[in-house]
Amino acid sequence: MKQSLSFIPTMREVPSDAEILSHQLLLRAGFIRQNASGIYSYLPLGKKVLSKIELIIREEMEAIDAVEVFMPALQQAELWQKTGRWYSYGPELFRVKDRHQRDFALGATHEEVITSLVRDEVKSYKKLPLTLYQIQTKFRDELRPRFGLLRGREFIMKDAYSFHATEESLDEKYQDMKQAYTNIFTRLGLNFRTVIADGGTIGGTDTHEFMALSEIGEDTIAYSDTSPYAANIEMAEMNTTFEKSDEVLLEVEKISTPNMQTIDDIVSFLDTEATKCIKTLIFKADEKLVAVLCRGDHEINDIKLKNALGADTVELAYEGDVIELLSCGVGSIGPVKLPLDLKVIADHAIASVVNGVCGANEDDFHLINVNPERDFAVDRYADLRFVQEGDTTPDGEGTIKFAQGIEVGHIFKLGTTYSEPMEGTFLDNNGRNQHYQMGCYGIGVSRIMAAVAEQYNDENGLKWPKNLAPFNIHLIALNMKDEAQKDLADELYKLLKSYRFEVLYDDRPERAGVKFADSDLIGLPIRITIGKKASVGIVEVKYRSSGESTEWPKEEITEKLQAFFGAE
Amino acid sequence: MKQSLSFIPTMREVPSDAEILSHQLLLRAGFIRQNASGIYSYLPLGKKVLSKIELIIREEMEAIDAVEVFMPALQQAELWQKTGRWYSYGPELFRVKDRHQRDFALGATHEEVITSLVRDEVKSYKKLPLTLYQIQTKFRDELRPRFGLLRGREFIMKDAYSFHATEESLDEKYQDMKQAYTNIFTRLGLNFRTVIADGGTIGGTDTHEFMALSEIGEDTIAYSDTSPYAANIEMAEMNTTFEKSDEVLLEVEKISTPNMQTIDDIVSFLDTEATKCIKTLIFKADEKLVAVLCRGDHEINDIKLKNALGADTVELAYEGDVIELLSCGVGSIGPVKLPLDLKVIADHAIASVVNGVCGANEDDFHLINVNPERDFAVDRYADLRFVQEGDTTPDGEGTIKFAQGIEVGHIFKLGTTYSEPMEGTFLDNNGRNQHYQMGCYGIGVSRIMAAVAEQYNDENGLKWPKNLAPFNIHLIALNMKDEAQKDLADELYKLLKSYRFEVLYDDRPERAGVKFADSDLIGLPIRITIGKKASVGIVEVKYRSSGESTEWPKEEITEKLQAFFGAE
Repeated sequence: MKQSLSFIPTMREVPSDAEILSHQLLLRAGFIRQNASGIYSYLPLGKKVLSKIELIIREEMEAIDAVEVFMPALQQAELWQKTGRWYSYGPELFRVKDRHQRDFALGATHEEVITSLVRDEVKSYKKLPLTLYQIQTKFRDELRPRFGLLRGREFIMKDAYSFHATEESLDEKYQDMKQAYTNIFTRLGLNFRTVIADGGTIGGTDTHEFMALSEIGEDTIAYSDTSPYAANIEMAEMNTTFEKSDEVLLEVEKISTPNMQTIDDIVSFLDTEATKCIKTLIFKADEKLVAVLCRGDHEINDIKLKNALGADTVELAYEGDVIELLSCGVGSIGPVKLPLDLKVIADHAIASVVNGVCGANEDDFHLINVNPERDFAVDRYADLRFVQEGDTTPDGEGTIKFAQGIEVGHIFKLGTTYSEPMEGTFLDNNGRNQHYQMGCYGIGVSRIMAAVAEQYNDENGLKWPKNLAPFNIHLIALNMKDEAQKDLADELYKLLKSYRFEVLYDDRPERAGVKFADSDLIGLPIRITIGKKASVGIVEVKYRSSGESTEWPKEEITEKLQAFFGAE
Repeated sequence: MKQSLSFIPTMREVPSDAEILSHQLLLRAGFIRQNASGIYSYLPLGKKVLSKIELIIREEMEAIDAVEVFMPALQQAELWQKTGRWYSYGPELFRVKDRHQRDFALGATHEEVITSLVRDEVKSYKKLPLTLYQIQTKFRDELRPRFGLLRGREFIMKDAYSFHATEESLDEKYQDMKQAYTNIFTRLGLNFRTVIADGGTIGGTDTHEFMALSEIGEDTIAYSDTSPYAANIEMAEMNTTFEKSDEVLLEVEKISTPNMQTIDDIVSFLDTEATKCIKTLIFKADEKLVAVLCRGDHEINDIKLKNALGADTVELAYEGDVIELLSCGVGSIGPVKLPLDLKVIADHAIASVVNGVCGANEDDFHLINVNPERDFAVDRYADLRFVQEGDTTPDGEGTIKFAQGIEVGHIFKLGTTYSEPMEGTFLDNNGRNQHYQMGCYGIGVSRIMAAVAEQYNDENGLKWPKNLAPFNIHLIALNMKDEAQKDLADELYKLLKSYRFEVLYDDRPERAGVKFADSDLIGLPIRITIGKKASVGIVEVKYRSSGESTEWPKEEITEKLQAFFGAE
């Protein structure tokens, strides 16, 4: 491609509205432009990167017998009403009325559509398993679109769905997908981790996320420093082996703690430790209040709490509800003498607290020397808290460390979550009607472009891995008015194209400095510069990744390039 | 691809809601399924055909230096308000509000978006010309979606846009595009015609349509039986050479014609000819009434009338308006003694009428022996009527014939229609600010699938041209339980794939009759059947296009296939 004919609008200055590096660089190097908040156009270079990502995904999907389809963005409301998501998905779902005032959702995901499609055609176990995928635009009206392509309102996804007669068959495909995803992200050049994840609103049981490691990632990964264990912090389990101290149990005392509201206040006022404090929170779980206990140095993990309670939603109760229930503020709650009908759930660590400190359910008073079981009852112990760096890993073999990650893939075992409401059934080999076992598997195609940009760059611009670079080679003629330079550049352009290299040929009448700066910004793996030595058939070569420069005689160029690009 | 792993739900019966053959066959052969009125899913075979169409389009676009981009479906209302199309596009434009109640259009086309993108980046003639294209889903809320993929509400289009410093540059690109489109539709195997077209709501001047010939086409093409002339009937011009008869002019007479309303009534009552009748119609052109005359055997063409009047809209006036204006019904209007301020425009053929018949502007009366100029004035003569089969062609060299066509492509010279309201300007080589000259160029990607299906079929199913077939070869093992058959089929499947043939391998445990019927329905170019002669290494080969059958020894298969598929 001749650069003069393409549309690669580069910028020197850093765009003020782009907070993170990948967003800045993709804008500056002319890969994308914003049309509206969270809505982008992919310019020629961006579109090429997308196509390369899609190619790798297609190859790996086909290798595990997933078959490509293409479903519509406009989805009848009736389908979403059938699963209840028309109501539960909230404002994130774009809704459209057609000219007859019929309601449609703009596809945020396609479980409903694909289940209805398959349901109408696949009625026997003989036609299962079946795995379908598509690469398509998705629409989600995010509350806070940000970070460029990382959290957009219109974005490109690969979504796959599998249908099975048995859980074993689903397990098998799930493992295949996990491997295919590992292959995909490896081929894409991403530094990533596969982590245990939460099913979230999509429902389902077993689920893993694929996280590209990056400081600006919105997810925290808890991983083991010595074993392969890794989980989204939302889901990271605690190792529940505790030692209880052999301290002598003392008598409970009620003490005045005027204006003490926080754990920190109490710790310094009583000269004690946060590990001794029993934090008591009132949550509303599906409209029912529940008391939740954890140690003063720990934080309750909503997802774990939700899962432990089997609730659809959990949220902290309003202060007003607490005052009505206990006649004290939220800073003075404690587990002793709570109303009998209030369920109490505690994090495992509470069981090991000896002579602890807690609120007295009376403003400005706390209790000391409080002991579980002796002084208050717990309905159930569970793993409720966020893990912390330094915690022992669940397998007991290592120590938890944290990293930030960008979710680039997510696989789910859905079971019958969708086939039941959608009435997706087949006859099994005994002639009985059964619901499909389903899996769903997503990859954020456009998001990957940002994740790679986040991992591959330096102060001068992007540094695309070979597999994803929009072109292999940036061919630059320093002075297009110099006939020897222009002739050699034209000759090389033709030659390299005939060898099937993808070449971006900077034939613009720009100064050398502009061409070099643009080239570094765009970040193709190899830059070939035709300068003064054109007359003697020598070109300068620079590897974008290492920054190394060298000179090649023109006769050796194709061979050396084949060696470089073949060596993947 | 093993058929057992794919999703190809075939049907024996003709779907009752599919009116036309291509729609029936694409449904029956499992290429598509309807999700809602005018909204379809592309199943694996359909998706493969789409990909092949897209590949050909991409190759031809790149050959003329058009560069691929990808723009969003969600488009800010402000852009459409800027060109006025937010208001003029009507209910065909899907409109969405985001969670902040901001208005968006769902992309029906992308002139506004691309003009705003280019406007912000290309400010010098040095960066022109520039041609960008995308392949993308479009949304249009058609009043009457029908004929399957031919008129849908969500469909796939290739749309290209070009930007130029001069009209000459636009002319050049327009010719390049016309040639590229000709190449594309030729490679797609379509029987098509390039026709002169109307710009319609998109605006612009010079414009051509590419019409796939088909009885069920919604457009009528008027073409010359001897020259390359072809035009959409909306635009087909008349040859305006007329001979005026040398009949003696007679005196006007008013005669009673009780209850005579139509030309037919008058012709039989007066024993005259329709060619003698002067039909007078009152139209409303942009809210202003105008009298429009044509011969009794002709029909007024709204598009020609609109263009002749330079109006945005023309429609027949309501009867009430006519009565108020002339105090007579629409069946009794005539051009003699019309109100002085009513503009009169007449088709050229009126000039040659001698001793004609027309309404008397009085119910139940007509005038005979009426002659233009002598008895009534015409403000302007123009080419206003639809051409008819048998008319002389505009070049005078042939005779008009009609054919029906499916519009598969449309190219437009937009000029500054969009760059002016969108303020898309650049500095020319004299440092003056100018508006871009623009062109836009569309291809109905998903519609092509239906157009090809409409042209390539027989009573047993589809007959895909080689370039578009979802697979090259249908490999069928008649009896998967016969070891010799299964082994040979497995061996051939591997072999053919290693030769890069695309093979659909029917490995299902179905009866031979079912497999053959499905194979004919799906319509791949070559069917290879492994039957009883498997043990002696002989396969049966059937060419779907010609219906010819033959036998090949297995050693010769790859060579014969290469000869067949290479010969394109």
